[in-house]
Amino acid sequence: MASTAEAEIEALRKLVVQQGDLVRDMKSKGATKQELAKAVAELKLRKAALDEKEALLSPPEPVFNRTAFDKVMKRRFFWTPSFQIYNGVAGLYDYGPTGCAIKANLLSLWRSHFVFEEQMLEVDCSMLTIEPVLKASGHVARFTDLLVSDVQDSTQCFRADHLLEAHLEKLIAANQDPSLLPEYQKVLTELDNFSKEEIGGYMRKYGVRAPETGHELTDPVEFNLMFPTSIGPNSLIKGYLRPETAQGIFVNFRKLLDFNNNKLPFAAAQIGSSFRNEISPRAGLLRVREFTMAEIEHFVHPEKKDHPKFASVADLGVLLYSREDQLSGRNPSRVKLGDAIKNGTIDNQTLGYFIGRIYLFMTKIGIKDAKLRFRQHMPNEMAHYASDCWDAECKTSFGWVECIGCADRSAYDLSQHSEASGTTLNAQLTLDTPVIEEYIDVLPDASAFGKLFRKDAEGILKYLRDLQVNNPCQLEELSKKLEADKKINLSLILEFNDKGKIEKAVSGDGPGSKQFEIPANLLQLKPSKREVFVKDYTPNVIEPSFGIGRIIYSLLEHNFSTPDDGKPQKEKAPAAKGKAPADDDDKDCILSLPACIAPYKCVILPLSNNPDLVKLAKTAADAFNAMDVSYKVDDSSASIGRRYARTDEIGVPFGVTIDFDTVKNSSVTLRERDSKGQVRLSMTEAAETVKRLANNTLTWADVLAKFPKFEGQQQA
Amino acid sequence: MASTAEAEIEALRKLVVQQGDLVRDMKSKGATKQELAKAVAELKLRKAALDEKEALLSPPEPVFNRTAFDKVMKRRFFWTPSFQIYNGVAGLYDYGPTGCAIKANLLSLWRSHFVFEEQMLEVDCSMLTIEPVLKASGHVARFTDLLVSDVQDSTQCFRADHLLEAHLEKLIAANQDPSLLPEYQKVLTELDNFSKEEIGGYMRKYGVRAPETGHELTDPVEFNLMFPTSIGPNSLIKGYLRPETAQGIFVNFRKLLDFNNNKLPFAAAQIGSSFRNEISPRAGLLRVREFTMAEIEHFVHPEKKDHPKFASVADLGVLLYSREDQLSGRNPSRVKLGDAIKNGTIDNQTLGYFIGRIYLFMTKIGIKDAKLRFRQHMPNEMAHYASDCWDAECKTSFGWVECIGCADRSAYDLSQHSEASGTTLNAQLTLDTPVIEEYIDVLPDASAFGKLFRKDAEGILKYLRDLQVNNPCQLEELSKKLEADKKINLSLILEFNDKGKIEKAVSGDGPGSKQFEIPANLLQLKPSKREVFVKDYTPNVIEPSFGIGRIIYSLLEHNFSTPDDGKPQKEKAPAAKGKAPADDDDKDCILSLPACIAPYKCVILPLSNNPDLVKLAKTAADAFNAMDVSYKVDDSSASIGRRYARTDEIGVPFGVTIDFDTVKNSSVTLRERDSKGQVRLSMTEAAETVKRLANNTLTWADVLAKFPKFEGQQQA
Repeated sequence: MASTAEAEIEALRKLVVQQGDLVRDMKSKGATKQELAKAVAELKLRKAALDEKEALLSPPEPVFNRTAFDKVMKRRFFWTPSFQIYNGVAGLYDYGPTGCAIKANLLSLWRSHFVFEEQMLEVDCSMLTIEPVLKASGHVARFTDLLVSDVQDSTQCFRADHLLEAHLEKLIAANQDPSLLPEYQKVLTELDNFSKEEIGGYMRKYGVRAPETGHELTDPVEFNLMFPTSIGPNSLIKGYLRPETAQGIFVNFRKLLDFNNNKLPFAAAQIGSSFRNEISPRAGLLRVREFTMAEIEHFVHPEKKDHPKFASVADLGVLLYSREDQLSGRNPSRVKLGDAIKNGTIDNQTLGYFIGRIYLFMTKIGIKDAKLRFRQHMPNEMAHYASDCWDAECKTSFGWVECIGCADRSAYDLSQHSEASGTTLNAQLTLDTPVIEEYIDVLPDASAFGKLFRKDAEGILKYLRDLQVNNPCQLEELSKKLEADKKINLSLILEFNDKGKIEKAVSGDGPGSKQFEIPANLLQLKPSKREVFVKDYTPNVIEPSFGIGRIIYSLLEHNFSTPDDGKPQKEKAPAAKGKAPADDDDKDCILSLPACIAPYKCVILPLSNNPDLVKLAKTAADAFNAMDVSYKVDDSSASIGRRYARTDEIGVPFGVTIDFDTVKNSSVTLRERDSKGQVRLSMTEAAETVKRLANNTLTWADVLAKFPKFEGQQQA
Repeated sequence: MASTAEAEIEALRKLVVQQGDLVRDMKSKGATKQELAKAVAELKLRKAALDEKEALLSPPEPVFNRTAFDKVMKRRFFWTPSFQIYNGVAGLYDYGPTGCAIKANLLSLWRSHFVFEEQMLEVDCSMLTIEPVLKASGHVARFTDLLVSDVQDSTQCFRADHLLEAHLEKLIAANQDPSLLPEYQKVLTELDNFSKEEIGGYMRKYGVRAPETGHELTDPVEFNLMFPTSIGPNSLIKGYLRPETAQGIFVNFRKLLDFNNNKLPFAAAQIGSSFRNEISPRAGLLRVREFTMAEIEHFVHPEKKDHPKFASVADLGVLLYSREDQLSGRNPSRVKLGDAIKNGTIDNQTLGYFIGRIYLFMTKIGIKDAKLRFRQHMPNEMAHYASDCWDAECKTSFGWVECIGCADRSAYDLSQHSEASGTTLNAQLTLDTPVIEEYIDVLPDASAFGKLFRKDAEGILKYLRDLQVNNPCQLEELSKKLEADKKINLSLILEFNDKGKIEKAVSGDGPGSKQFEIPANLLQLKPSKREVFVKDYTPNVIEPSFGIGRIIYSLLEHNFSTPDDGKPQKEKAPAAKGKAPADDDDKDCILSLPACIAPYKCVILPLSNNPDLVKLAKTAADAFNAMDVSYKVDDSSASIGRRYARTDEIGVPFGVTIDFDTVKNSSVTLRERDSKGQVRLSMTEAAETVKRLANNTLTWADVLAKFPKFEGQQQA
């Protein structure tokens, strides 16, 4: 039987490979994004069939106990829906003390690992963003989802693709006409790439209706996901809450370059909140309306993407799921980053270096190596300007979740803002050997030109000289026109500062523009040659962008375990009489967070509520304060075992017990969460030891070697 | 002459004291807030006259060189107006790398000093806030400023009080009719307390017009300062950007209390952004539309406001400017906090403890002791529910700036949310000796009651039993009515959860309400007595609230100096030929920030750009990375002195120089910014030494004692 199954698998894999070849072929022949998307959807369908067959032959994967997990997260206040006493609102969450401490630790580690280590320039920019910035970035026009609403009740709104998806899943499950299954599945897989009209068409075709009322639905319309607001009174200045932090870096590019002594490459970074007005958020913490991001924009010369520190990550074996893997039906495989660069899987060393640094960061904070993969974007997923893009995905009970995007965005962002703002966002490269360059020289008859155009003269010349740098082709055309017509006409928008100096000169014929006719006798636009030592260029940007909430969620799932994990269902502890067994799912769970990320590094437990012990617990707390190590005191009357269980559940890695020997000689017991091993040492030694364990300058093995083992009454 | 002046001063002081006595008297006789405000305004006027006279006799205060300061802040990218390449918008600022690092350090120190030290429960809540929350807090109704606009151009809006103020200042300066001066001054001082109608009246009286156009102005209208937005599609859910972080803590009170094992007192804390849509922001970084706050809500029993750790701050001498000082024309004076509690100046130990902790924090991060005072609110400034309130104010070139508010807000916030949400936000006190309490017992005829009201029965009983706790008087009235009329009528809004269990039962007759007539034969509301061991109460809250941007601004001013500081104007270096002297103001400035807050702890400087030295600078950088100490490498070709000057200007406290001896024996020079003293030590010693200097476990004197002094070519 095995061999029959293997043959089937081989056949299915062949189908995948065929389709992959087709996609490659289409891509090389310049197929449209839409066409590619359809071919990729078919590819995914074939891959899904292959995966399903393969799964039948593999041992079943352990099931994650999400019920127990959710209960612990709620009970121990990792997070909660916001404004719950007012019945809340979907997509907004508050972090409680445990979640908040984890988040603060994560951001602090992120800052050390990325900002300090690479000498990045960190900024902290406004969330309120004026409209022109987000017009230039493309968000005003394109940051949309498709919305449908109940024709009889316009307050009932839905995401069109989500409704269609749910409807098709229902049709597939019902399976009334098996011959239609392939079609349903095909539509399902192509969903992400449908146009507004296609989604609308399928919704009509399959009779999708409003979920609760069963009413008909409107045609899909584009809904912009940014939260609009206005700045100042009378709705004068239109603005949005930023949908990402990156734009704040781009608009400050010139100042950052200046701060960096005009040297490239350099990276800027920002940690901050962003906002997306999801139509109907689902999936809890994974799809929210307000979230923290950490973004890096690494600016680099387009042809100099090697990285001086790449060697430090070249030997890391990272789970890569390359475009080629996806096109060939292969599973992700562990590849050394050095090899991935050598064989061209990853486009350049800088991108590869960031993938390596991300891998090191994620595993340091507790993301499980086997549940972290880097998936390369398929041809249809990437923006037209991007040259390569990899998502760091974490496996959770919701499937593989995109936590970090790592994209080479070429010169797109700086070019867009350069054009829209009229401010050149360039860097300069000093050439090793100077080159001869042809250019159009702008040569006015200064005094006559000034006399005719007065204060605008400077603006017209600024406009023409900016063209020299940013759009030499257009300047060449103007030169030809001037030659042919003996004049040129310009329509410009000029802005001056308080002192009457020209600040901005762009072409445009909206309100505030002025018309100028420049006769050939006042201006020469003369093709010339010059020796060039320095070359202007628009830097490319490589952007690792971290979704902090998703990383925290994945981290917590990866480190959560219940006592029943790994046991087959039937072996689970029998339910107590009259009690549903589910109620017990969340007992004695452990959150095995690494010390560096744990919300508290240590719990301090007086053995009983004897006043001497409680007082000594305060002394111990002072020792931890002095060391700046976070801790929690639990002097409740619960048994020591119960109190350890409580702290295990929130991931506290170490515990200090105060007992009657402490009264005699100030010694305490230090316990490690995962091994449950204990040693005996002095109170100050305990605080210092925990500090060093938490910042990774000491291991538990070191501690066991240094201090006497303890096996007393505190054993949980 | 001096004695004449002294006599004048004495006379002026007497006038202040008289008015102070009047205010006290009015207060004790229950004058209205409005009446008090006017009396206080007169008091301030008299105090200003006294101060002016006193200033004439004191040596002139050194003038802060704001021009030089602003230039350095801009050039070294501490902050910048947001979106400047798009001409920006008033009231929004971005922090550059230096400002951002200072902010990150400040927040991290804040977390250690307050959250860790006091075991506070830190939370991180949504900025987007649904309307009911801000209705309950009073912000929807009362968080307003008065707005006037140009009658011919409604896009020109102004803050009414600002225009009136500027107009009066102009009238006073012009001084056309000296007999009117006292009136102008009086209006100016009372400005903050005028009603909409009064402001409008004075604007008409004095003919205030639009500043640039000279057009007439509309009457003042109330403008809400919150940024409105809507959550979800179709503007379904009305929301605002939060104007403060505190509400997120209040709405989560029950979960926090539960997390704290139902023990009080405890404090919750939150660091986050808040938003205020100022009508026309001025004063740069001090009045902005988006800002970071750090807020603490310390929940405590109303009659148990002693603090166990008060003794640790009792001996601190803090500059207090009490209400009594202000009423008596006295200047602020340095008072021991223990004494301020003993003589009742500060209302309670918990408030006093926080004032002490704030003082320690502010001086630790570099706020100058002499420029930090705690000013108590005057009777007219405090909200009606507040029992005491002190502002930590920092002296800057803009005057005394409120940076931190520290208020005892009594039970106001929890009561408001309790009432609005229908969720009891109480704590329980276990009594030392049980007491006998009268109460109204709710006794339904269970089966008949259930039969009549079916699934609503549980809701009606919940409502009545909630009244037992929250509003016993009303329950008593219902009891009397039931006795008299043999029935009661209720109009309730009931909400059930998915399983049909009652979640919320509040009185109301809006949409969704239901009417119930309950006959006396189905329900007894019986006056009863019981022995009570535990008592419900609404905790009071003491709220220290920090404006992070204002603290950063004050900190930078306090630590900024130019080489000309202290020199009389005429002694300043003469201007170079053809150069305005102002251009040189910003050279060789020093920012003497404490190491703990400095943006970088160390600069690494290779003596020249010799490749060996540059390479060793990288080795030194690695040593600092390994120690997790922030640093900056400056390997530009500027002289070592110039490069030190650059880092002095951004407050870097230590510098490491790599020279040719480093090539030989790995030793480096370590320099301290303020003394310019230097020692010689190994590279790893340097990194460790800087780390310990930065976290205050080592002083520069210790370093001088430990390592050989160095006086070589690196001397700046």
